[in-house]
Amino acid sequence: MTITAQKEVLTLQFTASREYSLSLCENLLVEDFGLQAMPETSPVKWHLAHTSWFYETFLLKPYLENYHCFHPQFEHLFNSYYNGVGQPFLRPKRGLLSRPSVDEIYRYRAHIDEQMLKLLSQPNDRLSSLVQLGIQHEKQHQELILTDLKYCFFQNPLYPQYEPTPLPQSMAMAPTWSNQSATLTTIGHNEESFCFDNETPQHKTYLTDHALADRPVTNGEYLEFINNNGYQNSLLWLSDGWAWLQQQQITHPLYWVQQDDEWFEYTLHGLRPLDMHAPVSHINLYEADAYARWAECRLPTEFEWEHRFASEFKQSNTERCFHPLINTTGTPQNHYGQVWEWTQSSYQPYPGFKVASGAVGEYNGKFMCNQMVLKGGSCLSPNQHIRASYRNFFYPSDRWQMTGIRLAKEL
Amino acid sequence: MTITAQKEVLTLQFTASREYSLSLCENLLVEDFGLQAMPETSPVKWHLAHTSWFYETFLLKPYLENYHCFHPQFEHLFNSYYNGVGQPFLRPKRGLLSRPSVDEIYRYRAHIDEQMLKLLSQPNDRLSSLVQLGIQHEKQHQELILTDLKYCFFQNPLYPQYEPTPLPQSMAMAPTWSNQSATLTTIGHNEESFCFDNETPQHKTYLTDHALADRPVTNGEYLEFINNNGYQNSLLWLSDGWAWLQQQQITHPLYWVQQDDEWFEYTLHGLRPLDMHAPVSHINLYEADAYARWAECRLPTEFEWEHRFASEFKQSNTERCFHPLINTTGTPQNHYGQVWEWTQSSYQPYPGFKVASGAVGEYNGKFMCNQMVLKGGSCLSPNQHIRASYRNFFYPSDRWQMTGIRLAKEL
Amino acid sequence: MTITAQKEVLTLQFTASREYSLSLCENLLVEDFGLQAMPETSPVKWHLAHTSWFYETFLLKPYLENYHCFHPQFEHLFNSYYNGVGQPFLRPKRGLLSRPSVDEIYRYRAHIDEQMLKLLSQPNDRLSSLVQLGIQHEKQHQELILTDLKYCFFQNPLYPQYEPTPLPQSMAMAPTWSNQSATLTTIGHNEESFCFDNETPQHKTYLTDHALADRPVTNGEYLEFINNNGYQNSLLWLSDGWAWLQQQQITHPLYWVQQDDEWFEYTLHGLRPLDMHAPVSHINLYEADAYARWAECRLPTEFEWEHRFASEFKQSNTERCFHPLINTTGTPQNHYGQVWEWTQSSYQPYPGFKVASGAVGEYNGKFMCNQMVLKGGSCLSPNQHIRASYRNFFYPSDRWQMTGIRLAKEL
Amino acid sequence: MTITAQKEVLTLQFTASREYSLSLCENLLVEDFGLQAMPETSPVKWHLAHTSWFYETFLLKPYLENYHCFHPQFEHLFNSYYNGVGQPFLRPKRGLLSRPSVDEIYRYRAHIDEQMLKLLSQPNDRLSSLVQLGIQHEKQHQELILTDLKYCFFQNPLYPQYEPTPLPQSMAMAPTWSNQSATLTTIGHNEESFCFDNETPQHKTYLTDHALADRPVTNGEYLEFINNNGYQNSLLWLSDGWAWLQQQQITHPLYWVQQDDEWFEYTLHGLRPLDMHAPVSHINLYEADAYARWAECRLPTEFEWEHRFASEFKQSNTERCFHPLINTTGTPQNHYGQVWEWTQSSYQPYPGFKVASGAVGEYNGKFMCNQMVLKGGSCLSPNQHIRASYRNFFYPSDRWQMTGIRLAKEL
Repeated sequence: MTITAQKEVLTLQFTASREYSLSLCENLLVEDFGLQAMPETSPVKWHLAHTSWFYETFLLKPYLENYHCFHPQFEHLFNSYYNGVGQPFLRPKRGLLSRPSVDEIYRYRAHIDEQMLKLLSQPNDRLSSLVQLGIQHEKQHQELILTDLKYCFFQNPLYPQYEPTPLPQSMAMAPTWSNQSATLTTIGHNEESFCFDNETPQHKTYLTDHALADRPVTNGEYLEFINNNGYQNSLLWLSDGWAWLQQQQITHPLYWVQQDDEWFEYTLHGLRPLDMHAPVSHINLYEADAYARWAECRLPTEFEWEHRFASEFKQSNTERCFHPLINTTGTPQNHYGQVWEWTQSSYQPYPGFKVASGAVGEYNGKFMCNQMVLKGGSCLSPNQHIRASYRNFFYPSDRWQMTGIRLAKEL
Repeated sequence: MTITAQKEVLTLQFTASREYSLSLCENLLVEDFGLQAMPETSPVKWHLAHTSWFYETFLLKPYLENYHCFHPQFEHLFNSYYNGVGQPFLRPKRGLLSRPSVDEIYRYRAHIDEQMLKLLSQPNDRLSSLVQLGIQHEKQHQELILTDLKYCFFQNPLYPQYEPTPLPQSMAMAPTWSNQSATLTTIGHNEESFCFDNETPQHKTYLTDHALADRPVTNGEYLEFINNNGYQNSLLWLSDGWAWLQQQQITHPLYWVQQDDEWFEYTLHGLRPLDMHAPVSHINLYEADAYARWAECRLPTEFEWEHRFASEFKQSNTERCFHPLINTTGTPQNHYGQVWEWTQSSYQPYPGFKVASGAVGEYNGKFMCNQMVLKGGSCLSPNQHIRASYRNFFYPSDRWQMTGIRLAKEL
Repeated sequence: MTITAQKEVLTLQFTASREYSLSLCENLLVEDFGLQAMPETSPVKWHLAHTSWFYETFLLKPYLENYHCFHPQFEHLFNSYYNGVGQPFLRPKRGLLSRPSVDEIYRYRAHIDEQMLKLLSQPNDRLSSLVQLGIQHEKQHQELILTDLKYCFFQNPLYPQYEPTPLPQSMAMAPTWSNQSATLTTIGHNEESFCFDNETPQHKTYLTDHALADRPVTNGEYLEFINNNGYQNSLLWLSDGWAWLQQQQITHPLYWVQQDDEWFEYTLHGLRPLDMHAPVSHINLYEADAYARWAECRLPTEFEWEHRFASEFKQSNTERCFHPLINTTGTPQNHYGQVWEWTQSSYQPYPGFKVASGAVGEYNGKFMCNQMVLKGGSCLSPNQHIRASYRNFFYPSDRWQMTGIRLAKEL
Repeated sequence: MTITAQKEVLTLQFTASREYSLSLCENLLVEDFGLQAMPETSPVKWHLAHTSWFYETFLLKPYLENYHCFHPQFEHLFNSYYNGVGQPFLRPKRGLLSRPSVDEIYRYRAHIDEQMLKLLSQPNDRLSSLVQLGIQHEKQHQELILTDLKYCFFQNPLYPQYEPTPLPQSMAMAPTWSNQSATLTTIGHNEESFCFDNETPQHKTYLTDHALADRPVTNGEYLEFINNNGYQNSLLWLSDGWAWLQQQQITHPLYWVQQDDEWFEYTLHGLRPLDMHAPVSHINLYEADAYARWAECRLPTEFEWEHRFASEFKQSNTERCFHPLINTTGTPQNHYGQVWEWTQSSYQPYPGFKVASGAVGEYNGKFMCNQMVLKGGSCLSPNQHIRASYRNFFYPSDRWQMTGIRLAKEL
């Protein structure tokens, strides 16, 4: 592509991504934009502002001549965790910012869009990777808008519906396995297209013999684990998982609701009877690991997963829903992309990993401790945000993300 | 008055009180209605709904034939603490109820108003005391709407203004004292007009010789205490107060803000330089008690206070502001009604106190432990909500109410 | 009495009190002396040291010429809460002081005794009230040694026995009432003999008509309350009590243990079947208040109690046990002195109360907030430590003291 | 070796290990045996009992005919975390078990020793690996006895000395590096001698080019980091580390004490001036990682470390001290074995790892989450407890172990 063509593509991607964020908010009431049910979740309006702040902080202020910032205190209010930019406003208090209003945040977004288009029209090749980062950053927050909102809505006994259209039903799909012999493989992104810094550098890793399941564990299978007293058998659990379960008195996945002996599941489409053939979701690493042990399997490493799916990506439901489904058409195939899949790999730097200099270097590297890698992508992930080298990461106890289980085993 | 005339007065009072609640919300954004910065504060929309729930629960459901409730789950969502009515929705989560929307809560209020007017038009004399209770209950929440909102707004570094009109300035007023010799006095309300159950029964109490200050302690006087290391001198503090102060690292009243060595105060009219002659406010019992000890005085008992002010009430600023002021016109006089005044009396039942039967009996009695009596009323109290026998009560550590200090001493 | 005779009496009292502390430790293992199961309890060895520290700090250092302190850091280690003396060692960490050893603390006590006898032999009349304070202070800690140890021992599934002798059995005693008409009475100590500052000054208080029960509530009566779902009925409970009960999942008094549907009680004499006719003990103010409401009575005020028992004191069991009993001989009589009796009076200063100057003034006054007055005395109280004007005080949620219930009611 | 000879060696090892535990307690007071300053530390007496419990539970009860257990409740009291054996006594309450006494625990140990020698004298080859596990298990607790005691003693302002002999001084040793080119290496123990299950199975891992420092980071080097505002610069810290540091207000290693601008260090030999050439110790993973980033290096992976030291082990100080030292004789050499060395590897199962069946399988596997691998061994590790394949593991925030830093870097 010519540089001009590349710039046009980038501008189109930028605009599409900015519009997609707003499209996710079309059904919301003004009241919904401010909810924050726990420190880990952020209000929708905060996400809308922060993704704009990112462009303002890392592109407009340093690179657009005569840029006038929209509001002097937004630098503080909408900084997430970049200590290099200044002390961020306290995360657990984001839900207390009734001002700026939703309207004002929409005006802030329009201002940023306008200024970014101005910047994009100027000749400066070096900025395109930062713009790409801004776009990918916003895509990450698009998924968070949905998972955070779901968690907040679930606190409300009225079980609000985010999306009124009904959900299709998954169909049964047999559990099959793909075998892999020991090999020295190459892991990580080749950097010919966009990737995050944590996917680099490419490097070699040795894999031992193993097999991976061809589809994620289903609600029906997980229910067997529950009915088999899985949550009561300490020998199935990691020590920290058992402590978590006992302290929180956990007996089922986050959004499962039992009414008159029947299981329902809260979804962004409302409460509905549990879909037995759909992937189990909103379980944490401890639950995934305990299920795997109960099934006499284990979780895959991130490297096994990446090696397996490096060359293919198949998402199962053509119509886009806000809840995971598989095999809705009855044509079985290999599946990923409905739920983020826990691995047994903790989130660590690849050999030779370097963080970018300056505050933008705080993006990924400083989280490389205490978290676990998740692979794949989910039904809530935006388009073109799913690739085999992608390394998502959350704490072992986190459940509010769209997370599920793929089994692995020794050969 | 004839019964018909009494009913007309009651209807007028009802309507006025319902309208006043809405008038307090005129300047708010939809986003402001949902804020809850700590469990003790409730969102404005919750107050609007709960004061309607009170009529629905204690009047409409039991007494209006064929009453259809507005929404089946509001009984649960807007119950504050009446366990007799059912398990209330969790107090710390009130701020997470984006639904019902503000609009729907306004429609709920309109529905309740309409049905209450229907009930009020029916001949049933016994209901008038319950209606009066509903009106007075709503008046209490009108003050809470303001104190809760103020606390929530203060978390926002933008310091939102609730009321845009500027505040007048207080003028100096000399501290003088009124002496009282020992006497056997009568305490409590005679029940000829409305009062809460906790103001009854009338009973005798013996007072020893003492004197009460004629005006509340001012910001300027309190600043002297601070500058005299009042917050660093453990000998001035109650043991629990010193523990509170050390743990929270408190060095000044709640809404005081120091910028470049100057003191400002956050008010509902915005941030403004500290008014040295205005009553100090938003201090807790520990601070009030420590100040009194530093001033070689003590706090009054609730009985001393009531005896002193039984026959008079003088509020100082004729224009109504949302911040305490005294002597704005330069005509000194005895003052109360600008800040709730901490007493050294803990909130206990009067001899022979009986709670009403049923859930409405949970109104006052069950709080008679761990809290302290405050007397008077504040600049945020609605009209006709101030009387000498009124017993307000809060925990010794509470600071978000409009609370101040009146000194007492032995003779 | 002549001054010399007075001094001799004082010296005898001093010596007896010092010896009694050690006699309480005769059955203990070295390992038992260091236990601290919660911040509110202190290790036995700490009590032994602190009661010596009191003499060292308030008598020996200021008044005995050429006094050499035993160890320079004991001033810090064994200061309880006297900020005027310096920053006390952190209360929750008292159990971590394995050094100084028990042996060294016994040597410290011997040193203090020796020096005190030296001081007592010198002519200085003004010291006798401070010495009396030291003796009474140690008596208070003698009771705490027992209640703290009991609480610590109870954490151990082996249920250690403090005292191996078996407990007698209480016999049934009918519940009767004493009536009192309204009267203006005198409250407080006349200061002709020793009392704490909080029992003064004497002053008048007006009492309304009421009746007091002649004996405390028994285990059997309390069990009826439990079996009548007393712990499940929110309408019986103070609001803070209900919150406490729900959060801690409380369903019975502190030391009750249910085994195979039978109730046992942990006592300092070991675990034994519940004595149905003995006073219920180790319940907090919330439980006492809820029981009283269930019984359609109320708790007495501290003034009603003091007026009733000003002129009599009858303790029921002649043999001294470490557990409350009544009517072991089958000769019914008015009873107090087996359990501290909760009142509905919060702990506040009497009119005209003045604290002593200096650090010793921190003894009582600074606790006059958030606590409730208990009257009487318990089976664990040392001899001559029970008088009608005595004001004990604990927080409403405290249960590890030897506390019980006397009912009151309106006439 | 013949089987008889092997059995004799095993018996000698058993006896030596049992005696070494008691030798560590020779200087202690009875009072010291019960200290528990935080849930993670256990009382010395608990360690002495638990290491005996291990033999009783996994060897004597299942394999010694007619074995009578010493005390029926010890199974519960001294179970650490083996849920398969029954509900363990609550870990944070271990310090509250004054009974059984120290004497009784010594008798318990003698009983176990006697019975074990009986078992060892019987012909049963299959037990030797379990006996070896018991010996190695006790060795682990021998190090914990010292680290736990040190933490408890440090809470005491008297700074008790565990070991009265004075500490030698380390001498300066230049920082040098060993380079390693990329290679496919073999990791894990060959199982020809004893190892824990987590060191198996042996497997291949690919290493990239890197270099490792030849000695650990010294106190002097770490002090430069502090003086260069290392604890104030957020960009040096992992996100969770920065949150930890801010919340706990950390500014230096755990046992460093500043007095009059001079640095001291609390050691088991007492407080002494900081030894600038000795290895820095008692820092956590966050501090190790921040230091490495400041030094423009990184931490090694556990595989780099194991590859480097697979064939050598050199401990630097011949005389055995209870504090880390290097180069006390002035003869520089490669060093490990003074401090456990944090790696950047999280503690995960090796490919194909299998846990033993039954409760003994809870030994290692269930902790494979949230913890980091430490390699090497420390000056507190017992003899013959250090080998290159050993995988120690602690949480990133843990500081009470004898932990230090070895730097790594890319080539």
